[in-house]
Amino acid sequence: MDEFALIAHFFAPLAAAEAGAFGLTDDAAVLSLKSGQELVATIDTLVEGVHFRPQDPAESVGVKLLAVNLSDLAAMAARPRGYLLSLALPVAWTPDRREAWLGGFVAGLAAAQARAGLALVGGDTVGTPGPLTLTVTALGTVARGLAVRRSGAQAGDDVYISGSIGDAALGLMLLQGRITGVPAADAAPLIERYQRPSPRLAVGHGLAGLAHAAADVSDGLIADLGHICRASGVRATVDSQRIPLSPPARAILARHPDVFADLLHGGDDYELVFTAAPERADDAARLVAETGVPLTAIGKIASTDIADNAHPVRVTDPWGQSLSVVGSGGYCHFT
Amino acid sequence: MDEFALIAHFFAPLAAAEAGAFGLTDDAAVLSLKSGQELVATIDTLVEGVHFRPQDPAESVGVKLLAVNLSDLAAMAARPRGYLLSLALPVAWTPDRREAWLGGFVAGLAAAQARAGLALVGGDTVGTPGPLTLTVTALGTVARGLAVRRSGAQAGDDVYISGSIGDAALGLMLLQGRITGVPAADAAPLIERYQRPSPRLAVGHGLAGLAHAAADVSDGLIADLGHICRASGVRATVDSQRIPLSPPARAILARHPDVFADLLHGGDDYELVFTAAPERADDAARLVAETGVPLTAIGKIASTDIADNAHPVRVTDPWGQSLSVVGSGGYCHFT
Repeated sequence: MDEFALIAHFFAPLAAAEAGAFGLTDDAAVLSLKSGQELVATIDTLVEGVHFRPQDPAESVGVKLLAVNLSDLAAMAARPRGYLLSLALPVAWTPDRREAWLGGFVAGLAAAQARAGLALVGGDTVGTPGPLTLTVTALGTVARGLAVRRSGAQAGDDVYISGSIGDAALGLMLLQGRITGVPAADAAPLIERYQRPSPRLAVGHGLAGLAHAAADVSDGLIADLGHICRASGVRATVDSQRIPLSPPARAILARHPDVFADLLHGGDDYELVFTAAPERADDAARLVAETGVPLTAIGKIASTDIADNAHPVRVTDPWGQSLSVVGSGGYCHFT
Repeated sequence: MDEFALIAHFFAPLAAAEAGAFGLTDDAAVLSLKSGQELVATIDTLVEGVHFRPQDPAESVGVKLLAVNLSDLAAMAARPRGYLLSLALPVAWTPDRREAWLGGFVAGLAAAQARAGLALVGGDTVGTPGPLTLTVTALGTVARGLAVRRSGAQAGDDVYISGSIGDAALGLMLLQGRITGVPAADAAPLIERYQRPSPRLAVGHGLAGLAHAAADVSDGLIADLGHICRASGVRATVDSQRIPLSPPARAILARHPDVFADLLHGGDDYELVFTAAPERADDAARLVAETGVPLTAIGKIASTDIADNAHPVRVTDPWGQSLSVVGSGGYCHFT
């Protein structure tokens, strides 16, 4: 199959539900927005060997690629509208390998886009002498003026986190053999969280009009809450005892208490961290009931007069002391 | 500089004119469209060693990256609104090399976005063990229902091409040393066309309501006109004598007549090929006067009853015979 046949066979079916994608045979997609809607747009790239492992199932790479982008839309309280996909496929791959990989990858995209309710609207396919490199631009919509920014956090706000934190970091540590001796029943859901994250779209949509500020947890809880604090000119205190952990994460932590810092700094959970006024606690509880996703109040926002605000997040132990293992760094590609 | 410092130093200035880009510090951009506008979106990736040469000036890579994407918007008759940029930078680069390259690259982006009247609205920066890999998603707008598709060509239409064809292919051949002995005054503008293409945005915008079908010439004139023919279920005949060539291209062809096929198949000109009803010739002439860009009628569209329509474009010599050197292939990344 040449690139046109690849597009027709593998990708055109992903675009079938969107008339404005023109079956991926035109120069660009044309999309209508409803009146009163604003466009929300984000781009993310995954590189084999950096963001996923060469041995990860192709289908899981498709799920993850879409999830990391949709998670950014969720953090802005946007609904997904469509996505564009660029594939740089290794020229060293044989046609058989390429088509086998694409089959799995497209199955993952198909499952993820069906869950999220959007379609592929455009793409590009090129060859690379380097590793498999995948880029998605996700397009969403939000009612005019209701996008939730990182910069709106206010002193006195509660800090909430959706779901549970650290599962993806533990999943990666399990895959890397950095933690061993974990029963398969505990390991499997953690690895699943790392390989097939699920963007918190329903929670995200519910943040419009509720949250003062939000971000998704892609760089790590401390780093992403730090982004909110720096953008808002505030600081945060997080109670380490309140950070929600899944049962398998708790089981591992009981035997390896030293990995707690890894969980706070680990990325890839794709939960939402947000702040809201204390008097909106009932609305947060209502959102939990509507979505079935737990929201946990883990800390408070306070004002700050520190100009550089480089380390705005403090994590405290049960006695109110700062945990010394916790800096404010997240994952950096360059240092 | 870590990635956050890189973004603040190099990229935030490119986003300064767009309030909805939030200084590139948020999870996604939020853009408003005027009522009655539709969104036009396209994505393209350039890989070092595939789409540009390692020794190409970084500034020219910035110009080209934006041009290839804006050219797709032009082909739909859209106006540029904003773009998202993903950079996969080689981890093997030293910080000095990275920052020197980014300085040039950003200067090229800045020049190109100023000419086109749009701003950076979002991005992602990652490290790669492979070659420099750059992806842009360009977002544009078009009045509802006025986007020009590839699929609207009608029997009897004239086929037009903007500007001149083959300059970029010759520029690349000169850089590769495949053609030698060309005076510098002739070589320079051809190399410039290859390294710093200029998207035909003004012509493209003028195609709304004028052209039945359009595409940009990125895969080669024959291939891209072929895309129009297949999407429209028609065929085309192009008079080889009418294909517009620049003076330096004519000078080279006089000495190397064998490169004519390379010009027809060469990509990277980023001209617009379109079809329009013969009675709209005066409107085409008016568009030339408005934009200062030549438009040349090079052939005609005819109906076809060939089901697979794999080779819909015929190029004729002055005696009406098909040129045997001309197939219908364009550049394929995979075969």
